[in-house]
Amino acid sequence: MRIGMGYDIHRLVEHRPLILAGVTIPSERGEDAHSDGDVLLHALIDALLGAIAQGDIGTHYPPSDPKWKNVSSRKLLRETLERVTAAGFKPGNIDCTVILEKPKLGPFRESIRASLQEDLQIPLDCISFKAKTKEKQDATGKDLAIEALATVLLLPL
Amino acid sequence: MRIGMGYDIHRLVEHRPLILAGVTIPSERGEDAHSDGDVLLHALIDALLGAIAQGDIGTHYPPSDPKWKNVSSRKLLRETLERVTAAGFKPGNIDCTVILEKPKLGPFRESIRASLQEDLQIPLDCISFKAKTKEKQDATGKDLAIEALATVLLLPL
Amino acid sequence: MRIGMGYDIHRLVEHRPLILAGVTIPSERGEDAHSDGDVLLHALIDALLGAIAQGDIGTHYPPSDPKWKNVSSRKLLRETLERVTAAGFKPGNIDCTVILEKPKLGPFRESIRASLQEDLQIPLDCISFKAKTKEKQDATGKDLAIEALATVLLLPL
Ligand SMILES: [Zn+2]
Ligand SMILES: [Zn+2]
Ligand SMILES: [Zn+2]
Repeated sequence: MRIGMGYDIHRLVEHRPLILAGVTIPSERGEDAHSDGDVLLHALIDALLGAIAQGDIGTHYPPSDPKWKNVSSRKLLRETLERVTAAGFKPGNIDCTVILEKPKLGPFRESIRASLQEDLQIPLDCISFKAKTKEKQDATGKDLAIEALATVLLLPL
Repeated sequence: MRIGMGYDIHRLVEHRPLILAGVTIPSERGEDAHSDGDVLLHALIDALLGAIAQGDIGTHYPPSDPKWKNVSSRKLLRETLERVTAAGFKPGNIDCTVILEKPKLGPFRESIRASLQEDLQIPLDCISFKAKTKEKQDATGKDLAIEALATVLLLPL
Repeated sequence: MRIGMGYDIHRLVEHRPLILAGVTIPSERGEDAHSDGDVLLHALIDALLGAIAQGDIGTHYPPSDPKWKNVSSRKLLRETLERVTAAGFKPGNIDCTVILEKPKLGPFRESIRASLQEDLQIPLDCISFKAKTKEKQDATGKDLAIEALATVLLLPL
């Protein structure tokens, strides 16, 4: 059994979609990034890579490499899950938290979990999505950024 | 077995008590909130809900609902523990960290752990409370906010 | 089985080395601290102490005590691992994340993991080191601070 934890942050900017686990959230601003900026999947990928001790998302998908420009993070998640399998593990459960001032993310919880389930192929009651605000504090609280935390438990295959 | 992680932040304001796991800490300022603002229990409740993938504290106890005005978060914790039981799990161990510039929380560690034990009903050596400062950085470091992180391991009943 | 999580932050200042898991990273600035300021080991020590519910690094090594001035945090880690053993546990795997704007930490990953392995005495594929930036946000993003997160899974001896 293994555990891993991931953290990610992106600036919020205009003329970019806000994407969480592949789901586009209606919003005036979205994540700034060379990739799709999917802060939730980036934290989750880092948690998975951490649990198998195979570097981090920057190791495998360097933002400077044009190959990853605008690539869907779901593709990167699926590749990461192949690494998890090759290491002899499968996800037991995952717990994700996105910290964002607005919009409210509650209405998108089930779409996000469904999207995660498509890639993770584990029971829905093992896939948690939680939303928080930062109570107007710091960059995220001032609506300038979005943060995500993810934790995973891996079970032997 | 399941894991979960919770994060919470509250602004610190005058004329409010500083409450951690139901223990009132002598302080010039306390957590701003509609509820009792117990940042530690909110992070813990979110960790427990995350581990069983049943939404977050905002789902079950929306701050806009006057029903939760000034309610004790210990009551919400006990309700959450009933959900954990109903899902077929019990807490194995919990590890909580509160980030606060002042006052020092070390002297209150044992009262906080004892209070947590009353609600969690698990051995004291499975209940961890840790305190950190934010080294004068960002909102919490400038004494404007208090943050909490909690992680839980759930065991099958 | 037990889990724990640790968080630490230090200000970055000139005329101090930047030390991570005992490895000195070439950098114009390093962690401000009474001790060696090893933010990664401090987060890891806190995660280990949290998992066995034996207080936090400030409890055992108060920064006000001149005894700990400039002491190597590796010594504190080894003492903490003795506490873990005495409590009947051993580390299963650890996952650490350091958040720092610059320099890039990727090139030091393997030195850091090797140093951690010397102290932890567990297989290398159970020791994860990840690096993130804070995307220019908040104190760490403005190059004023360095943060670390660590999570550990403990197995019974
Ligand atoms: Zn990212
Ligand atoms: Zn709260
Ligand atoms: Zn430290």
